[in-house]
Amino acid sequence: MAEREEVSAPPTDTVAQLRAVLDGRWAHTRDIVRDEIQATDLVPMSGLSMADYRARMLDAMTAMVPLGFPADGFAVPHGGTGDVGAAVTAIETLGYGDLSLMVKAGVQWGLFGGAIENLGTERHHEKYVPGLIDLDVLGCFAMTETGHGSNVQALETTATYLPESDEFEITSPTPGSRKDYIGGAAEHARYAAVFAQLITAGPGEEPTGRGVHCFVVQIRDADGNDLPGVTTSDCGHKGGLPGVDNGRIVFDHVRIPRDDLLNRYGDVAADGTYSSPIESVNRRFFTMLGTLVRGRVTVGAAAGAAGRLGLTLAVKYALVRRQFSGPDSDDELVLLDYRTHQRRLLPLVARAYAFAIAQNEVVAELHELQSGDPADADPEEIRKLEVKAAAIKAGHTELASRAISEAREACGGAGYLDENRLSRLRGDIDVFTTFEGDNLILRQLVAKQLLTAYASDVSDLDAVGWIRFVASTVKDIALEKTAARQVVQTLLDDSDEDPENSDLTHPGTQLRLLRNREDHLLRTAAARMGRAQDEDADAQEVFTGTQDHLIKVGDAHIERVVLETVVDVIGRVTDKQTRTLLKRVRDLFVYSLVEDDLGWYLMHRHVSVERAKAVRRGVNELCGVLRPHAADLVDAFGVPDTALDVPMIRHG
Amino acid sequence: MAEREEVSAPPTDTVAQLRAVLDGRWAHTRDIVRDEIQATDLVPMSGLSMADYRARMLDAMTAMVPLGFPADGFAVPHGGTGDVGAAVTAIETLGYGDLSLMVKAGVQWGLFGGAIENLGTERHHEKYVPGLIDLDVLGCFAMTETGHGSNVQALETTATYLPESDEFEITSPTPGSRKDYIGGAAEHARYAAVFAQLITAGPGEEPTGRGVHCFVVQIRDADGNDLPGVTTSDCGHKGGLPGVDNGRIVFDHVRIPRDDLLNRYGDVAADGTYSSPIESVNRRFFTMLGTLVRGRVTVGAAAGAAGRLGLTLAVKYALVRRQFSGPDSDDELVLLDYRTHQRRLLPLVARAYAFAIAQNEVVAELHELQSGDPADADPEEIRKLEVKAAAIKAGHTELASRAISEAREACGGAGYLDENRLSRLRGDIDVFTTFEGDNLILRQLVAKQLLTAYASDVSDLDAVGWIRFVASTVKDIALEKTAARQVVQTLLDDSDEDPENSDLTHPGTQLRLLRNREDHLLRTAAARMGRAQDEDADAQEVFTGTQDHLIKVGDAHIERVVLETVVDVIGRVTDKQTRTLLKRVRDLFVYSLVEDDLGWYLMHRHVSVERAKAVRRGVNELCGVLRPHAADLVDAFGVPDTALDVPMIRHG
Repeated sequence: MAEREEVSAPPTDTVAQLRAVLDGRWAHTRDIVRDEIQATDLVPMSGLSMADYRARMLDAMTAMVPLGFPADGFAVPHGGTGDVGAAVTAIETLGYGDLSLMVKAGVQWGLFGGAIENLGTERHHEKYVPGLIDLDVLGCFAMTETGHGSNVQALETTATYLPESDEFEITSPTPGSRKDYIGGAAEHARYAAVFAQLITAGPGEEPTGRGVHCFVVQIRDADGNDLPGVTTSDCGHKGGLPGVDNGRIVFDHVRIPRDDLLNRYGDVAADGTYSSPIESVNRRFFTMLGTLVRGRVTVGAAAGAAGRLGLTLAVKYALVRRQFSGPDSDDELVLLDYRTHQRRLLPLVARAYAFAIAQNEVVAELHELQSGDPADADPEEIRKLEVKAAAIKAGHTELASRAISEAREACGGAGYLDENRLSRLRGDIDVFTTFEGDNLILRQLVAKQLLTAYASDVSDLDAVGWIRFVASTVKDIALEKTAARQVVQTLLDDSDEDPENSDLTHPGTQLRLLRNREDHLLRTAAARMGRAQDEDADAQEVFTGTQDHLIKVGDAHIERVVLETVVDVIGRVTDKQTRTLLKRVRDLFVYSLVEDDLGWYLMHRHVSVERAKAVRRGVNELCGVLRPHAADLVDAFGVPDTALDVPMIRHG
Repeated sequence: MAEREEVSAPPTDTVAQLRAVLDGRWAHTRDIVRDEIQATDLVPMSGLSMADYRARMLDAMTAMVPLGFPADGFAVPHGGTGDVGAAVTAIETLGYGDLSLMVKAGVQWGLFGGAIENLGTERHHEKYVPGLIDLDVLGCFAMTETGHGSNVQALETTATYLPESDEFEITSPTPGSRKDYIGGAAEHARYAAVFAQLITAGPGEEPTGRGVHCFVVQIRDADGNDLPGVTTSDCGHKGGLPGVDNGRIVFDHVRIPRDDLLNRYGDVAADGTYSSPIESVNRRFFTMLGTLVRGRVTVGAAAGAAGRLGLTLAVKYALVRRQFSGPDSDDELVLLDYRTHQRRLLPLVARAYAFAIAQNEVVAELHELQSGDPADADPEEIRKLEVKAAAIKAGHTELASRAISEAREACGGAGYLDENRLSRLRGDIDVFTTFEGDNLILRQLVAKQLLTAYASDVSDLDAVGWIRFVASTVKDIALEKTAARQVVQTLLDDSDEDPENSDLTHPGTQLRLLRNREDHLLRTAAARMGRAQDEDADAQEVFTGTQDHLIKVGDAHIERVVLETVVDVIGRVTDKQTRTLLKRVRDLFVYSLVEDDLGWYLMHRHVSVERAKAVRRGVNELCGVLRPHAADLVDAFGVPDTALDVPMIRHG
């Protein structure tokens, strides 16, 4: 019971300082959602039927409307407040409550709402935005098809313009074109943002495919019945997220008015003439997708929150649960006194800090970019944000999934019981590595953008064309010599060029370790691409052979970007004690990253054997250093008490 | 549909040959269980209530009785057939069906039955064995307590002998002494094998603790009501295994007849006098636990089957699912044509082969040891089997958990839907790394046994005493120079002593790579222990500091033992084509193990940078070599068609 009181106690000064760093700019929004979770006991439930769970989530979502954040994601002229960062942060914080609600809210206000906000024009904003904020208009985001998950450009659903009736006809021509896994489609959604191949002919033209566009399609009447031509079905039970009603939609020649094409990037005149501000079909497609980056940012952020919740549960348990007696004593030690247990959890806590800090920065960048007039946004800034969002989404969801699995196992049998929540969390987080972009695909996307230095003229190229482009243009690619952040550059300048001979706890050395790896991987990837130009090169082989190299580039980039942000943010913490503690967290983050990849570092002679051993020792030592601060470190995550009120922590 | 036909097609010659290798000695038993799974459509269900799922499993377990294998685990004089290997293999094969049933069956016939068979004497065999075979006597295995999972010696439940009534009184004196997570205790079990601290006094003695013993206690009446003094409760929903009724038991001065002490290793006379054939309390305890090794063997085996099922699902899906077009083609490639996808799945398929083969050998060794008169068994052989069982349990459950997670992710959104079973399997397998010995604890146990060279006189020592024992006796410990298997020794003799300069595809080189690592780790672990003898040594620090070293020793041992078995078994395959294919599987197994641990190999100069790069290339090349055989490799697992009859494979 003593432990329980500690959980509820007001945060210590250190905890408050740490929490301020983690909560960042939208701390106030976080607190609103924390209070709501606490007040409504919003935690994963067990033993509810699927129908009851879904109904509970719809009610919970309705209760969110008065909190205000649903309006934050929409521009003021459309009926919102334009506080994009608050909108994302609120949904992130639902990760401390129930991920089913996080996903439901993300689909409604983020994906469906985001499609209308970003791909639509005034007529759509007027017609839909107020209703979708207050849930009069419940929607879903019908992009993925049974046959096409990651390859959105290959979607098969068609939207054919019929000039005689001024309508589009939406159809699912093949079994593979069925919309699938769509959150909300099984039950609650009355509208769908449907992605389909637009086919139209201007006067005298043959009907021509214009690429993927998005259409608002009503799929159900007010009583929840499928409208004529629409057949929805239920994906049924899943590995988690029991409150999300994922479903399928098949369209059989469904007519919608021409006005319901979201026409910001491509429009059809009454006579069928197609027009677009972007000439290239591919570039148009990627521009449209790019506006949906908010979904990816949100998913990474919410996964991070769930990961922190999982780690908090496991660390709190490890501080109360005793097992085996220590040497020279009859008292059993608490689990966290064991080195193996520290090694299981504390490096993940350190990573959770690092990614939370980096995530906050992505949210802020998204906010800046999407708060102003979209027409003013710099295309290169947009592309850079897309890459960073993809990187952080992949890294943060991967970390969360790993952290929750490790947390579950670290709590043994207790961790397997639903009453202690980790098993529910494990099931819920599992699909985060897949949706909003499969992490393997995202890491390749990151690498490809780096290799083409964010060039805008490569989106028309297929895989082989792309390899040839890289081969012909960027043989001497390397990471920019000058870091984008002044503090990073200063630290690099201040550190020995040869990381081998410099202090491993110096942030400059740490930055070099991660930068040099990324640079090396980028150069060698480019060199491998270069072989595609050889006369006897088999494009298929180059393509296949470089795939895991690209993924590795993606990983190295993610970790480097995170460290740079962490160094920057820690440098700005004014409280000395807090800053010192965060530096040790940063050290453990870096040491454990390097330890996980020691094979690469040694193989490519980026560290010596002696240094490698120092890294391993360092992880152990840092676990020991941070062990006394473990409770503070997780308390600073600010998980609401109700989420931690579980038997294994109450009773040890 | 074409793919579906292939799934159902009779096995090709290669598949039949491979399957014979994998099925091994109890192939007939496997086929009986496969047929039952197929005939009764025994697959994980979705959407059943907990109560219905439990009832379904009890029915399914009842349907197993006529198959005969429930009797296989018991000696002929007790009413069984004495075919221990068949008993274990049958329960293993349930891993192709529903792990809930596997666990229910394992608890009833393996754990509860095993306790009575191995810790009881004639009176118990007569009274209980026939009924527990045919399910008249439903039991559970009440070892774990809320406060004590891995540390069984510290159990707090007491069994106090009362000479005046010739009874034991079973009591749970503290909240932590509640029996917890007990499969069957929530609902179905009428009896429990209860592990408790025996307290008794002979004439004129003070009541004295005699250590943990096992008692048969009836906990429910025929109508399922708790008996007086017994309070059962339900662990409720879990992360998986929905058909297993895990529960808790609290005893409040429950009286049982003296006869219900399972008295093979410790007995109490009517006057309270305690006697045992084993004097040392600790050694007695470990001897008793040792007889329960069958549970550990079974859990490893069944996890292996579940892992093979998961890999089969993912590989079959990867052979029908197309995504993105290949270079110079408009056709999308199937997933398994992608290098990243091959790398995800094929090394795990190779490991599944290796562990299946090693697991078969452990089952056969268990069979030999437990089929004869237990009195004749060589204590050293018993200890060696215990270590091997612990090693294979840890390795095989870890592999299965990883394989199923990877399989789930490799199937993307489809893998998350219960209809495709991987998410269910993921939830079910999750706890296998924890129960029947937490894998972290088991790996330390393996290492400790190796360090004391299986010495029998260390079981009385606590952690510090044990470290001092190692320090004082085994400073020059090393792996035996001479391999136990002739074929291994021959291959070692036939290979270059310096693995660096020898052919990496030579099994002798491969054996050296794994043997040298284990040897190095053992020597250095012993040396670290040696420091505990230094005057200023802090036992706590030595204890903490060596923990992760010991775990690493355990891992290295597991992998070396598996490889030796694999080399041995492949060498005896007569069909040349099959043997060649299996050698490539072995190569991928070894290459991927070494690749996963390249940091260690490089850091300790067991491979050069050049060799490390060759290993990485080798994994890629072997993935390419095995890609065309992928369908055969998984078909040879012999997963019943019904387990593979899922939408994602039917429809691609």
